Amino acid sequence: MFKIFPYCTKTTTQLTDLQLYFWTGRQNIISMEWKLRVLPLNVQRPVPSDISISRSQEPKDIANLAEEIGLIKEEVILYGSKKAKVSLKTLDRLDKEQDGKYVVVAGITPTPLGEGKSTTLVGLVQALTAHKKRNAIACLRQPSQGPTFGIKGGAAGGGYSQVIPMEDFNLHLTGDIHAVTAANNLLAAQLDTRMFHESTQTDEALYNRLVPKVKGVRKFSAIQLRRLQRLGITKTDPDSLTSDEISLFSRLDIDPNNVVWNRVVDVNDRHLRKITIGQSPTEKGLTRETSYAISVSSEIMAILALATNLEDMKNRLSKMVVAFNRKGGPVTADDIGMTGAIMVLLKDAIEPTLMQTLEGTPVFVHAGPFANIAHGCSSIIADKIAMKLVGKDGFVVTEAGFGSDIGMEKFFNIKCRTSQKTPNAVVLVTTVRALKMHGGGPPVTAGAPLKKEYTQENLELLEKGLPNLIKHISNVAKYGLPVVVAINVHSNDTPAEHELIRKSAIAHGAFDAVVASHWSDGGAGAADLASALIKACESADSKFKFLYELESSIEDKIFKIAHEMYGAANVDLNDKVKEAIKLYTEKGFDKLPICMAKTSNSLTGDPAIKGAPTGFTLTVNDISLSAGAGFIVPMCGEISKMPGLPTRPCIFDIDLNTETGEIEGLF
Amino acid sequence: MFKIFPYCTKTTTQLTDLQLYFWTGRQNIISMEWKLRVLPLNVQRPVPSDISISRSQEPKDIANLAEEIGLIKEEVILYGSKKAKVSLKTLDRLDKEQDGKYVVVAGITPTPLGEGKSTTLVGLVQALTAHKKRNAIACLRQPSQGPTFGIKGGAAGGGYSQVIPMEDFNLHLTGDIHAVTAANNLLAAQLDTRMFHESTQTDEALYNRLVPKVKGVRKFSAIQLRRLQRLGITKTDPDSLTSDEISLFSRLDIDPNNVVWNRVVDVNDRHLRKITIGQSPTEKGLTRETSYAISVSSEIMAILALATNLEDMKNRLSKMVVAFNRKGGPVTADDIGMTGAIMVLLKDAIEPTLMQTLEGTPVFVHAGPFANIAHGCSSIIADKIAMKLVGKDGFVVTEAGFGSDIGMEKFFNIKCRTSQKTPNAVVLVTTVRALKMHGGGPPVTAGAPLKKEYTQENLELLEKGLPNLIKHISNVAKYGLPVVVAINVHSNDTPAEHELIRKSAIAHGAFDAVVASHWSDGGAGAADLASALIKACESADSKFKFLYELESSIEDKIFKIAHEMYGAANVDLNDKVKEAIKLYTEKGFDKLPICMAKTSNSLTGDPAIKGAPTGFTLTVNDISLSAGAGFIVPMCGEISKMPGLPTRPCIFDIDLNTETGEIEGLF
Repeated sequence: MFKIFPYCTKTTTQLTDLQLYFWTGRQNIISMEWKLRVLPLNVQRPVPSDISISRSQEPKDIANLAEEIGLIKEEVILYGSKKAKVSLKTLDRLDKEQDGKYVVVAGITPTPLGEGKSTTLVGLVQALTAHKKRNAIACLRQPSQGPTFGIKGGAAGGGYSQVIPMEDFNLHLTGDIHAVTAANNLLAAQLDTRMFHESTQTDEALYNRLVPKVKGVRKFSAIQLRRLQRLGITKTDPDSLTSDEISLFSRLDIDPNNVVWNRVVDVNDRHLRKITIGQSPTEKGLTRETSYAISVSSEIMAILALATNLEDMKNRLSKMVVAFNRKGGPVTADDIGMTGAIMVLLKDAIEPTLMQTLEGTPVFVHAGPFANIAHGCSSIIADKIAMKLVGKDGFVVTEAGFGSDIGMEKFFNIKCRTSQKTPNAVVLVTTVRALKMHGGGPPVTAGAPLKKEYTQENLELLEKGLPNLIKHISNVAKYGLPVVVAINVHSNDTPAEHELIRKSAIAHGAFDAVVASHWSDGGAGAADLASALIKACESADSKFKFLYELESSIEDKIFKIAHEMYGAANVDLNDKVKEAIKLYTEKGFDKLPICMAKTSNSLTGDPAIKGAPTGFTLTVNDISLSAGAGFIVPMCGEISKMPGLPTRPCIFDIDLNTETGEIEGLF
Repeated sequence: MFKIFPYCTKTTTQLTDLQLYFWTGRQNIISMEWKLRVLPLNVQRPVPSDISISRSQEPKDIANLAEEIGLIKEEVILYGSKKAKVSLKTLDRLDKEQDGKYVVVAGITPTPLGEGKSTTLVGLVQALTAHKKRNAIACLRQPSQGPTFGIKGGAAGGGYSQVIPMEDFNLHLTGDIHAVTAANNLLAAQLDTRMFHESTQTDEALYNRLVPKVKGVRKFSAIQLRRLQRLGITKTDPDSLTSDEISLFSRLDIDPNNVVWNRVVDVNDRHLRKITIGQSPTEKGLTRETSYAISVSSEIMAILALATNLEDMKNRLSKMVVAFNRKGGPVTADDIGMTGAIMVLLKDAIEPTLMQTLEGTPVFVHAGPFANIAHGCSSIIADKIAMKLVGKDGFVVTEAGFGSDIGMEKFFNIKCRTSQKTPNAVVLVTTVRALKMHGGGPPVTAGAPLKKEYTQENLELLEKGLPNLIKHISNVAKYGLPVVVAINVHSNDTPAEHELIRKSAIAHGAFDAVVASHWSDGGAGAADLASALIKACESADSKFKFLYELESSIEDKIFKIAHEMYGAANVDLNDKVKEAIKLYTEKGFDKLPICMAKTSNSLTGDPAIKGAPTGFTLTVNDISLSAGAGFIVPMCGEISKMPGLPTRPCIFDIDLNTETGEIEGLF
């Protein structure tokens, strides 16, 4: 490797990987067959706690994993030796490569305990790569830190199917949620402060401050020129504006009763659900009611997840509607000058974070939008990079929040529509426990011991619950994709119960239905599931289609989702919602996709109704616009954007051992 | 290097640096003479903008810099290629090494524009290492992100004396402030939620939830056992508590009107200065008034800066008083179970961040406590590590906020007392501009052009202002240390003005006084300053002593500071303050050092009074206790803990170039 290249005076040892890549020809560097070192599992019985399993495995140096999956040094930004961000430049380099298979993991209607979608996803990629020798990358959302300190329950998978180190995954990670929080709250501060300054200054004073003379020169900034353009003012010399134009430009005239932007915090802080701000005398009586939501519900988080590149992100951010003026017109993030500052705060957050599973296979963690008021999927950018890295015979397995009626529907109709990436198959996770609940079993509550219906074989109850699974299978079919049902094993299950589910699923259209024990066995436990998935992707004749066309009216799109995905016969829109829809239509927002906000605990709008009912009426009692993220959010029932802490949060168990530096008591 | 070691079956190439270190004997690895590659400056005229200078220099790979200064691979946690955290293990490894010289950079009473303390500090270390061939590390505070988006003004130094990359320094850095914010706000949420749960549950229900049966077993967590101990209950079986003990244990009985813990945000958000929380019906009427402060004012930030090790940090965090109960007793962070959770959230934040100057010399950035309600110095841990790394002939140059009356006083009496590290010399930064202001020049305002008094030679005005400098020189002398005055050059200064300052400083006891042009010339411009400092440290007969003894009464300590440092003849304490002092004394807090909160714009309590007045009365109108950080805070006048944004924040200029990925408009 000391050959001199014609365009270059350096020897190859002096070249960067990136230069080598371009100068030696791609094929010398890129190989889509990973030489990946698998980490063997040392499976224990009984299965130890998540953190103890996570600790028992020494992760590979993340730089090595990055190299194994074909990333070059310039594309990898290390955060210690176990996490790394991956540069967007990777997409440019691999632009010409074919995408791998694209698989989404969805679920049936879950119990409050969750049915193990993330765990199944992680187990599945462990199986695909470590046991089936296929390139596979898992794409997961970054979890909110709120629940981490609330009720026990990690988001990194569990048992022998985990992302490691689980404490890094669950705490801070590479700071993306903190960056979203900072951007969201800077916007809020700038919004309230602008209202304050407008209320205390004349047009002239305001204008002179907004466009000051600096060293004798008066100039509009780029963001101010954009605002002028939107106002139809084509002048560029600040001294040439008429007094009307000065007023128009300087006064956003925000209606304090119509501010739609909230502050956020990544903490379960119930006392911030409704607050009054501006009560210090320094704010001269400009108080108003507002609220905090949890950070991951910020529209900025949804945008981070949906942006296809930097320019697209900037464009979406600029369009976020943060308030309405006294004439009812929208005021955007760009109007208050925030687009660039948010971009700068998110410049690292836009890069996905690379981690690994317990078996040393790659995982991308990126973005974590809410699954009700937002679309609940990990980022488009992570999926896109992953699909290039696995190569055409590889697999990208990504997740969608809640049941197929919620996360999966939005994955297809919002995320895939935006990314223009076509999915190949769906893995639908079910448990015996959840189906028994749908069959009429007693309520399942976090923290309380399971009732005997769930700890003993009960085929009758299980059978009664199968319609829920069948409904979710048929939901997938509506998109023209094969569905592989994953029966996520729990220790109380019996073989007869598994067999009942399997047969029913296949009889009702599943491509296959497979028992998977990845929680207790790691990837080996999901090897059959992986085989079925490979078969589904390679042999099934998938013809992906959307559920609705964007050109349909907002009402029609809502009805289509409610009818086809939930089983509703009617949709009831109150007057307020109808009026809002009229307004959105007038303003040209009616061509956006729909992001339903509905309980995840039922196919209907009522969390208490289990099974798979039909013929009901779905009530939409509110609706909002996320103009930046690019969707309309009809709300069915009260949606809390701020969880609370329980009387005994897991805070009480968490500690740092000052001798070893190790975290204790985290899950 | 293939020799086999007796205790080890591996060859040296298979060993980690750390293993090698222990197995080959320290002297083989450690060398206190750095082989440091200096980055040459390409100085331009006129001096370009800070960001353009920062961009024009390609930083060394931070891993290389770390190696150059004697860190081993295991001690360096990379955050990309330009920042790295340094492990606390470094202190264990270098435990036996001698400390380097310890220098603090302080200032005279500044103008609102600042007199360039950080710039001088950075220029000085560039000079020491790049020009004087001495090992030197700069220790700086991490700046709040609030001002970054408010009024222009970087905190990374300026001109040719900067920490690079300046955008990393000013934005997120390695996430420490975000971690402090998260910890502070989790504590606040837990506090309000606890009050809520106590108000809605009986003693029994509360106890059953706080100490639940898990799989049939009921157990106190470690943090609950600590609370029992504080209550004088020695039982460890939850079922053995009497109903009185249950009530005592379960009810913190917090007085909602006496909650002293605030929420924080790292944004200039003036509308959060006073707010009412808990107004959602879900909180059942438990509303109360509270406030947000800027994150760096959190007591947790002060603790991060003052902790000497992990165990000490935990101990301090546990003692933070967050509220008082209805009987007037303190409720601590440990009482609400938060110590461990905060430790876990801060586990990375406790490690200093390594960056570099424009000339490639090392900088530690760590912690950034407020300089009024806290002590305004960077961390003890960073200074400690730095002193080991530079070796006994090297220099650690650290900073103290505001004038010698504030930051330096606290540096000595709080920080050095806690760290037990003895400083060797003080660099006192002055400018012609500030001294003219003290001589009676017109007000200096940020953003407005300087008046002619400041742009033309005016020896008379300057001479009138010299008493301020002389007072600060005499302040240093009271600690038994030599002071080197740094005259930070500005373009309007004349040689005669410089000479006037120089002569006067030396005549009044300065070890030396040196003109320094590091802003326009980089380290070369501070080479004479570096020479003077080396001489001061090596030849001066320094006999460091504290200003006051901890055993003195709180009143005496306040008087001593006011009299000796500010020039006050009397201290006026109102009844509220006197009462609080009585309480602190009763509770045994009277042996803590004092952290005065006073305007930085005057030696007196009135920001409008310039020069060096004497004989005045200092009024203390409030006082508070930071039991965790370990100091008492007397307040002289209104201290704002939440800045606001101006009408035209620099938000309007900031953007991310989506083609190049570069930040624009940041300073």
